[in-house]
Amino acid sequence: MIRKLKQADVPIIEKFLGKVKAFSESEVSVAMELVNIAANNPEQTDYNVFVYENSKKILGYYCVGKRPITDAVYDLYWIVTNPEHPKKGIGKSLLTHAEEFVLSKNARWLLAETSSKDAYAAARNFYLRNHYSIIAEINDFYSVGDNLMVFGKFFSK
Amino acid sequence: MIRKLKQADVPIIEKFLGKVKAFSESEVSVAMELVNIAANNPEQTDYNVFVYENSKKILGYYCVGKRPITDAVYDLYWIVTNPEHPKKGIGKSLLTHAEEFVLSKNARWLLAETSSKDAYAAARNFYLRNHYSIIAEINDFYSVGDNLMVFGKFFSK
Repeated sequence: MIRKLKQADVPIIEKFLGKVKAFSESEVSVAMELVNIAANNPEQTDYNVFVYENSKKILGYYCVGKRPITDAVYDLYWIVTNPEHPKKGIGKSLLTHAEEFVLSKNARWLLAETSSKDAYAAARNFYLRNHYSIIAEINDFYSVGDNLMVFGKFFSK
Repeated sequence: MIRKLKQADVPIIEKFLGKVKAFSESEVSVAMELVNIAANNPEQTDYNVFVYENSKKILGYYCVGKRPITDAVYDLYWIVTNPEHPKKGIGKSLLTHAEEFVLSKNARWLLAETSSKDAYAAARNFYLRNHYSIIAEINDFYSVGDNLMVFGKFFSK
């Protein structure tokens, strides 16, 4: 079941983010900043967080929001599965839910920024497999040798 | 004189942002969100706001901050001159100050996102004149026909 974030999910998410091999400490802290904003202000819509719950376990979550100033472009800020409870298809289910959520808001585009590092190869393949295109790349963005790659899926109307 | 934002500057900035022809209401509200965060939390460093003050008038301001997760890439979120008190060189002085500020933090790059619309031609020329390059462009980003253009200046060490 995919449902909106509750306050009680916050420590569980924080715990499993710390176990994601690809994430640095600063990535975990930025991810938690958005989770906390969403948990503390459930009515705000800049950061919408949904969790995948199964048998009372949180198997993953995503965070999506409209990019400020754009008319209808959404950013998939985070999509993370719980490495403590690996299960096939969780990422794909979360992504499909995110796409349906932004489509219900009349999104034109869903964007996802990721890194060119080896540790993010699985993330890049995940987006390509799910029909995302690389729409921009900026060399040496996160650090020297670590490029920003912007993936995007366009929703035709 | 260019100095840090004070609480008393906030309504002055809000007033002149409303008179900038290129800005939509949503742009003004996003700009003010960052000004308010900086004014209410002067110790936070995500949004650093500096104003150009001359004879007790605020002639412009800029807002700059480190891009989360990057090692040393800074975003020039806003740089705006006061259309009520137009004066040559204010934008250039603010930009030079912003570059010196981020260099003092060991920035590798200063980025500035802008739009491809006609209303932003002056902004684009301003960056090009000041040795910024176009490092990425995403078509139909802000809205259909309105592209995101990312300008950047690289600081070699």
